[in-house]
Amino acid sequence: MHTIQTLDLNDTRTIIDAGIAEAERIGSPSNIAVVDAGGCLLAFARMDDAWRGSVDIAISKAWTARAFDVETKALAKLSQPGADFYGIHASNDGKVMIFAGGVPMKKGETVIGAVGVSGGTGKQDQGVAEAAAKAFAHG
Amino acid sequence: MHTIQTLDLNDTRTIIDAGIAEAERIGSPSNIAVVDAGGCLLAFARMDDAWRGSVDIAISKAWTARAFDVETKALAKLSQPGADFYGIHASNDGKVMIFAGGVPMKKGETVIGAVGVSGGTGKQDQGVAEAAAKAFAHG
Amino acid sequence: MHTIQTLDLNDTRTIIDAGIAEAERIGSPSNIAVVDAGGCLLAFARMDDAWRGSVDIAISKAWTARAFDVETKALAKLSQPGADFYGIHASNDGKVMIFAGGVPMKKGETVIGAVGVSGGTGKQDQGVAEAAAKAFAHG
Amino acid sequence: MHTIQTLDLNDTRTIIDAGIAEAERIGSPSNIAVVDAGGCLLAFARMDDAWRGSVDIAISKAWTARAFDVETKALAKLSQPGADFYGIHASNDGKVMIFAGGVPMKKGETVIGAVGVSGGTGKQDQGVAEAAAKAFAHG
Repeated sequence: MHTIQTLDLNDTRTIIDAGIAEAERIGSPSNIAVVDAGGCLLAFARMDDAWRGSVDIAISKAWTARAFDVETKALAKLSQPGADFYGIHASNDGKVMIFAGGVPMKKGETVIGAVGVSGGTGKQDQGVAEAAAKAFAHG
Repeated sequence: MHTIQTLDLNDTRTIIDAGIAEAERIGSPSNIAVVDAGGCLLAFARMDDAWRGSVDIAISKAWTARAFDVETKALAKLSQPGADFYGIHASNDGKVMIFAGGVPMKKGETVIGAVGVSGGTGKQDQGVAEAAAKAFAHG
Repeated sequence: MHTIQTLDLNDTRTIIDAGIAEAERIGSPSNIAVVDAGGCLLAFARMDDAWRGSVDIAISKAWTARAFDVETKALAKLSQPGADFYGIHASNDGKVMIFAGGVPMKKGETVIGAVGVSGGTGKQDQGVAEAAAKAFAHG
Repeated sequence: MHTIQTLDLNDTRTIIDAGIAEAERIGSPSNIAVVDAGGCLLAFARMDDAWRGSVDIAISKAWTARAFDVETKALAKLSQPGADFYGIHASNDGKVMIFAGGVPMKKGETVIGAVGVSGGTGKQDQGVAEAAAKAFAHG
C-alpha cells in the first residue's frame, strides 16, 4: 500500500483563473481542463468564443499529460512518423493528444495532476497551460 | 437565420457554486456540469470524494436535459419498458441519461442551457441540480 | 445477380416536405430522415426548435425500419423485456431504435427505403412518418 | 448570458440547392451537410451515385468547420506531421475531418453555421462547399 498526493477541486480555481487571465492577456479564448493524480477530470471551463471542438481536446490533453507524466509538447516529437511512439494517438479510445497544451503539475518530483488547454495555436495553448500550472506552484 | 440566447461562462460560477453549497448541505459529494444552449460543455466541477464514474454521467445529464428540453427525471418515466421512449438510452452514442439530475435552464420559455449533477441518489442529484438552476434564475 | 429499386434524392423532397407539413399541422417540431434501399442516408431536415438529441434518433429510426423491414412501432413490442428481441437495441453500435417513428417505404411488396421521425411523442412521430411515407406513395 | 445568431432550416434550402447545382456543373456527385451555430446538423442531401462512405465525412466536415471556426482545407495544413495540430483527427471521437470541403458560414465576423461536402477530390469538394456558402451570403 502507499499514499499519493493529488490536486483537489479547491486547487483548480487558482489554476483555471490563472489560465483565463493569461488567455485574456494574449487574446486566445481557451478551453481549460484540470485532472487529478488519477487522471480524472476535476474542473473545466470554456471561455466565451473558445472553439467547441476544443472541449474534448483540452480534457484529453490534461489526461494525456498525467497518463504519461509528460508535456504533450514533448510527446509530439516522440509520436511523429518514424519516431518511437508513432501511432500512440490511436490508443486509449483516441484520448491521447500529441500536440502542445498539456502540462503535468508536480509537487517536488511527484506528479499530482495536470492541466490541458486548447483554443489557440500550439504556442498559445502551451503558454496558457504553463501560466495555469505556475500559478498553483507559487500559490 | 434566427437569434438564440445562451448561458455563458460567467453564469456558470453562480450555478456551480450554488450546486456545491447544496451538495455540502445534504452531504452528497457531486459532479456538476453546465452546458450552453447548443449542448456544449461550458463548465464542470468534481467535488472531493465524488464518484469518478459520475464525471461522464453529470456531463451527459446536462447534455440530455438540453438535447430534449426536459428534466432527465421526467425522461426516466418516458423511457421505462413499455413507455414511449423505451430504448432511447441506446441513441446518441450512449450520451442519453435517463435518471434524475439533469435540469434545463430557461429564460421565460426559452431553454438557454442545462445543468447535470451526479454523485448521489436520484433524489440527491435532483436536489443539487434544482438548487444550482434556481440560483441563476434568482441571481 | 439481381436488380433492386430504391428511393433517390428527388423523392426525398416530396417525403420531407409532407413530413414537415404534417409536423406543422400537429405542432410537433421534428427531425426527419430518409434512407435508401441500402439503408444509407439520403436526406435529412431538422425543423427549427426540434430537439437536438433527436437528430441521431431520426436517422437511426429510418435505418432501423429498413434494416429489419419493419415499423419501429412494431419492433417496440418485440423488444420489450421478456420478448423475442429484447436486447436488440444494444446491437449495431446502438443504431437500432425500438420506439415509434420509423416506417419502411414500399413499392408493391418491395421495401425501397424508409423514413424516420423524432421530436415528439411516439404517436406524433408515427403520424408525421406515416404522412411523409404516404405522400410519396400517392405522389 | 449572451445572444448568438444561427442558420435555420429555411436557409439550408438555398445552400444545398446551390451546392447541388455546382456539383452537377462539375460532374461530382456530392454529399452536402449543413450545421447550425451550435454544430448540430440542420440538413443533409446525398446526390444519386454519391459515395456512401462520404455521408459521415460530409457531416463531420461541416461539424469540424464550426467546431474550430476554420475551413477544413486550412486545418489540413495545420494537422500534417510536424505541424501544430498533428493528431487532432484522433480527438472528438473521430469527428474531426482534416481535408478540404468544410467551410464556415459567417454573418460579418460571426460564424453562424457551416457547410460540409464530400464525394469528389479535395478541389471538387471545396468548390461545391464554397458555391453553397456563397449562395446564402448573396441570397
